[in-house]
Amino acid sequence: MRWSQQLLPTLRETPLEAEIPSHQLALRAGLIRRLGAGLYIFLPVGLRALRKVERIIREEMDRAGAIEVLMPALQPAEIWERTGRLESLKDVMFHVGDRQERGLVLGPTHEEVITDLVAREINSWRQLPRTFYQIQTKFRDEIRPRFGLMRAKEFIMKDAYSFDADADGADASYRAMYEAYERIFRRCGVRAKAVEADTGAMGGKSSHEFMVLADSGEDGIVECGSCAYAANRERAEARAGEGAVWPDDAAPLETVPTPGARTIEEVSKFLGVAPGRLVKTLIYLADGRPVAALVPGDRELNEIKLRNALGARSLQLADDAVIERVTGAPVGFAGPRGLTIPVWADHRLKGCRGAVTGANRADTHAIHFDLDRDAGVEVAFADLSFAREGDGCPRCAGGTLREKRGIEVGHVFRLGTKYSEALHAEYLDEAGQRKTVIMGCYGIGVTRTLQAVIEQHYDANGIVWPVSVAPYAAEVVAINMQSPACVAAAEAAVAALEAAGIDVLYDDRDARPGVKFNDADLLGLPYRVSVGDRSLARGVLEIKRRADGRVVETPPAELAATLTEMIRNEEARLADDA
Amino acid sequence: MRWSQQLLPTLRETPLEAEIPSHQLALRAGLIRRLGAGLYIFLPVGLRALRKVERIIREEMDRAGAIEVLMPALQPAEIWERTGRLESLKDVMFHVGDRQERGLVLGPTHEEVITDLVAREINSWRQLPRTFYQIQTKFRDEIRPRFGLMRAKEFIMKDAYSFDADADGADASYRAMYEAYERIFRRCGVRAKAVEADTGAMGGKSSHEFMVLADSGEDGIVECGSCAYAANRERAEARAGEGAVWPDDAAPLETVPTPGARTIEEVSKFLGVAPGRLVKTLIYLADGRPVAALVPGDRELNEIKLRNALGARSLQLADDAVIERVTGAPVGFAGPRGLTIPVWADHRLKGCRGAVTGANRADTHAIHFDLDRDAGVEVAFADLSFAREGDGCPRCAGGTLREKRGIEVGHVFRLGTKYSEALHAEYLDEAGQRKTVIMGCYGIGVTRTLQAVIEQHYDANGIVWPVSVAPYAAEVVAINMQSPACVAAAEAAVAALEAAGIDVLYDDRDARPGVKFNDADLLGLPYRVSVGDRSLARGVLEIKRRADGRVVETPPAELAATLTEMIRNEEARLADDA
Repeated sequence: MRWSQQLLPTLRETPLEAEIPSHQLALRAGLIRRLGAGLYIFLPVGLRALRKVERIIREEMDRAGAIEVLMPALQPAEIWERTGRLESLKDVMFHVGDRQERGLVLGPTHEEVITDLVAREINSWRQLPRTFYQIQTKFRDEIRPRFGLMRAKEFIMKDAYSFDADADGADASYRAMYEAYERIFRRCGVRAKAVEADTGAMGGKSSHEFMVLADSGEDGIVECGSCAYAANRERAEARAGEGAVWPDDAAPLETVPTPGARTIEEVSKFLGVAPGRLVKTLIYLADGRPVAALVPGDRELNEIKLRNALGARSLQLADDAVIERVTGAPVGFAGPRGLTIPVWADHRLKGCRGAVTGANRADTHAIHFDLDRDAGVEVAFADLSFAREGDGCPRCAGGTLREKRGIEVGHVFRLGTKYSEALHAEYLDEAGQRKTVIMGCYGIGVTRTLQAVIEQHYDANGIVWPVSVAPYAAEVVAINMQSPACVAAAEAAVAALEAAGIDVLYDDRDARPGVKFNDADLLGLPYRVSVGDRSLARGVLEIKRRADGRVVETPPAELAATLTEMIRNEEARLADDA
Repeated sequence: MRWSQQLLPTLRETPLEAEIPSHQLALRAGLIRRLGAGLYIFLPVGLRALRKVERIIREEMDRAGAIEVLMPALQPAEIWERTGRLESLKDVMFHVGDRQERGLVLGPTHEEVITDLVAREINSWRQLPRTFYQIQTKFRDEIRPRFGLMRAKEFIMKDAYSFDADADGADASYRAMYEAYERIFRRCGVRAKAVEADTGAMGGKSSHEFMVLADSGEDGIVECGSCAYAANRERAEARAGEGAVWPDDAAPLETVPTPGARTIEEVSKFLGVAPGRLVKTLIYLADGRPVAALVPGDRELNEIKLRNALGARSLQLADDAVIERVTGAPVGFAGPRGLTIPVWADHRLKGCRGAVTGANRADTHAIHFDLDRDAGVEVAFADLSFAREGDGCPRCAGGTLREKRGIEVGHVFRLGTKYSEALHAEYLDEAGQRKTVIMGCYGIGVTRTLQAVIEQHYDANGIVWPVSVAPYAAEVVAINMQSPACVAAAEAAVAALEAAGIDVLYDDRDARPGVKFNDADLLGLPYRVSVGDRSLARGVLEIKRRADGRVVETPPAELAATLTEMIRNEEARLADDA
C-alpha cells in the first residue's frame, strides 16, 4: 500500500484529549479518531492492527475447540429481567426506543442471549460440552469514558461461553480458555498476568482477570514477590493472623474529650497516637439495614469484602441521619461499644487492646479500648480491608506482597448455574434425568487489548509494534522521490516484499527524509527498509529494526529473503513463548 | 468439523414464523435463529456462510482500491441534524438514551460520520480521490420487520463512500464500484440486475439498485424485453407519447348524475365506460399546499414522480376536509375544471378528450370532457404514473416492458455535494482554490445478500449452495457408525480433504443413513461424500453433486484430488462469469 493512497494522518503535536501514552500515540500515528465521548473511528491502518488481534484470538479460540456465533447487539429487555441484570446492570445499559416501545437494550454482554439459545437448542448430554464465542461490538454507558479505547462506550469484545454437564467438565472448559488466553496475549506480544478477581455483577463462583501491567493502568494488582500469588486489589488477601501488634495495656476503658476531632488523622494528632492504634467504625446499610464495620485506623475498608462477608446484595455507606440514630452521636465519634446493630471487624482487630475508638458521644473518644472486653456486643471477624504493599503473602510462608498497576484485558468466570437456572438451560443426562447446565464465561476486550499492546510497546519516538499485530510488517521508505533510480529501486523492493507475502507500507510521499523517518518511528512498524541513492551506489538497502535500532544491509536481490527470515524469527519468538 | 461437535439444529417442520423459502430454509438448515422481531442470531454454520460473503465483498473492494475503516454504530444526533436527516430518517432511526442525555442515535448508515471525518482529515487535491468502505452492523427501526434477514432491525452492511475532486473523477469512482458490485454478486452465485432507481432519502443525482430476481421479492422491477433498460417500479418510465388513444368526441361538456359512484370502478360501471376513459383527480398536499394530480383511470399515480415533478420535499394525500374545501364537493367527485390550485396531469392525458371526470359537485360527473377545452386552468404535464407490463420501452424503438419482482441487495448513488456541503468537506485544488468534494455512496446488504443466495438456490429438498459461499465445500457422511471400517474410511477421507485445504463437515452422528442424507440435502453443501461398507468393498467412495445429483465414484486415495478439481472448476465458472 502506498502512503499517498492511504489515509494515514500522523500528528506532530500530542492531542489535548489524550492523557496516557497509548491513547496519544494511537491518535498521533493516525490509527483512530474520536467521534464523540467514548466513540472512536478506526482509520484504515488502525483497523489493520485490530484485525490482526482478532485473527490471533480467533485462531486460539478455534484451536481450543470453541465455535463462533454472532448475536444481535439489540436485545429484548425481557430476557435481562429474567436474570435480574436489567436492575444490576442498569447503570451501564443503553436503552433503545423502538416504535413499538417493546423495550430494547444494547447488549453490554451476551450471557442472556446465548443461554436462552442453548436452553432452546441443547437438550441432551450428547450435545455437551460446547463452548461458543463471538467477536463483536458491545455497548456500555460508561460514567466516565476515557483513555481512548481503554474505556469506551462502544467497543469490540471477544466473549466465549462454555456449557458443561458437570463440574469436572466445567473445570476443563475453564482451563482450556485460561490457557488459550495465555497464548493469545503472548502472541499479541503483551505481558499479561492472571490474577484472582471478584465476580461482581457477573456472578458465579470464582474468576481470574488477565492484567497487562502498566503504570497507567486503572486497576490495582497485589502480587507476592516470592510465589505465584496475584489478585486484583479488591480481591487480594494478606497472610492471616498478621497485622497490628497491640500493646500490653490492661488499663480500664476511659473516655476523653476530643473536641472537633473526627477523622483518623485529627484524632491521631489530637491524642498523639499512631493511626494504627485507632479503630475506625463505619456504619453501612446492607440491603437497607444498618451494620457497623471496624478496621484498624491505618487500613482502608474493602466494601466488596464486607458485602461478600455479609452476603448482601447491596451495600452503601449510611447517611448522617442513620449514623446519628444508630450511634446516638454526630458523625465522627462512632465506636462499637453499646451498638445494637450487627458489628463486623477486620480480622486484624483480633486481640485488639490499648486502642482508641469513638465513644458514641459528641466530641468524645474512648482510650485503653479492648475489643473483647469493651465492645459489649458480639463481634464477627472477617477479612474486611485491602491488602497492601508489605503485607505477608496469604499463600506462601516467607513472601511479601507488592502493589502494581494493570489494565484488565481479559476476565474468565466460573459461572456455575446462575444463568442456566434463570433461563432454564437444562439437559437430560444418560439416565434420562433433567439437570442444569454448568457455565463459564470468558471475555477479552479486543479494542482495549490493541491499545494495551501500544501501552507496553513505545519509546520516545513512537510505537514499537510486535510483528504479530503490527498494521504492516515493514515500511519501505524512498529517500528521494526526485531520483528515478531511487523510486525504481523502492518500487522493486515493495514488489519483491509483496510477492513474498509480506505486508508492506510504501512511503512514496514527496517529502524530506527526516519527515518520513520521523513518521516511520511514530507509526512504529517492525522493519524499515530505506532506499537511497547513496546506499544503492554501494549495492545495498538498509533494514532497520524498530525495536532496537539495529541496522542490517542487504543487496536488493536478497531483501525479501532476509526480511522473511527476520519476521519469521520474530514471530517464532512470540509463538514459542506461547 | 464433526457434526456431533457442531451446533447444527436442523428442523423437519417449516417454522410458522417464516413465509418465504429462503427464510424457511435458513431456519430449517440451522443457520439462524430468531431472538426478537427483526433480530437474528447467526448459528455457527450460518456464520460461516456469512463470512464467505463478506470475504468476497472485501476482496472486490480491495481490488477496486477502496480502503476499509470501522465507524461507531452509536453516533451523536448532532451530525445528523447538520444534514437534515435527523428529520428525514426519523421514522427508521433508533434513539438511544445515555446518561448525559446528549442525544445518541444508532446509525442506519454512515454518510454523516465518514463525511465529517473526511472534512477533518482531507484538505488537499493530493489526498483525492479516496474510496472508503466498512463492513459492519447497522440498525433500522423497521415498521414491519419480516422475511428473516431480508428486512431486519439489525443487519450487516458493506457501505463504501467515494470522495473526488471533480465530476469526471466521481464518475470513475462510481463506475469502479458498479463493476465491483457486478463481480461480487456473480462470485456469490446470484443473478443480480442493475436497475435505475430513485435516490430517495439518500439524495444525490442518480442511482442504481442491484436486484436479485425472485418471485418473493418485495420490489417491483420494470425491464425491456428487447434492450438493456431496467428500472425499479418507482423510477421506471414508459415510451413517451404512447398511452390512451382518445375518441374523436367533440360533443360539448355535459354533467350527469352519478349518485353514490365515487371510485373509478363504480363510475366506470355506472356509466358503462372503460376505466381508461376516466380521468382520476387526486388532491395532494405538497409541502403543505394543495395541488391536483390527474392520471388516466386505469393507471396508478406514482407519488415519487409527482414529488419530483413538483420539486417538493414532502407530499401526502389531502384529507377529506381539504378536498372538500378545494373542490367544493365531497370526496369522490373531484375534477380539474374550475380548480384554483395548481393542476398537474400525467403525460398520457395529452390530447385527452371524450373522457369522464368528476364535476366538483356531489353525485355528479362530467362526460365528453376535453382536457384542453374544459379544464379552464393551465395544466402542467409530466410522467406521473407507474410504467407497467406492456408499455413501450422508453429507450428503444420496438421494445415492450415487462414486470419482475426483485430483492434489493445493493444500491449505488451519485451523491454530488449534498453531504460534503452540509459538513464542509472541502479541499484546496492545485491552484489553491477551495472546492467542495464530490461524493458517491455504495451499499450492499450483506446479511440480505446471504439470504438472497438461498432464495435463488434451493429445491424441494433444501438449499443448493454455490461453492463460493457454502458454509463448507463438502460433507462426508459415514453411512454406518457401527462399522469400524466405515468410520475409519470416513475419518481418513475427512483428514485427506482437510489436508487439501477443503472445508469439510463430517456427519459422524450415529443415525440412520436416511436421516443423514435428508439433512445433507437440507443443508445443501455442494458435494456429499458417502462412505459406506458396500462401496468400500468395491474400493470406491461416492461423490454426489448437490446441484444436479450427479454421482462420481473415486478410489479413496484420489478423493482429495478429484474433489479439489471439481471445486476448482466450479469456482472458476463463477469467477469467469465475473
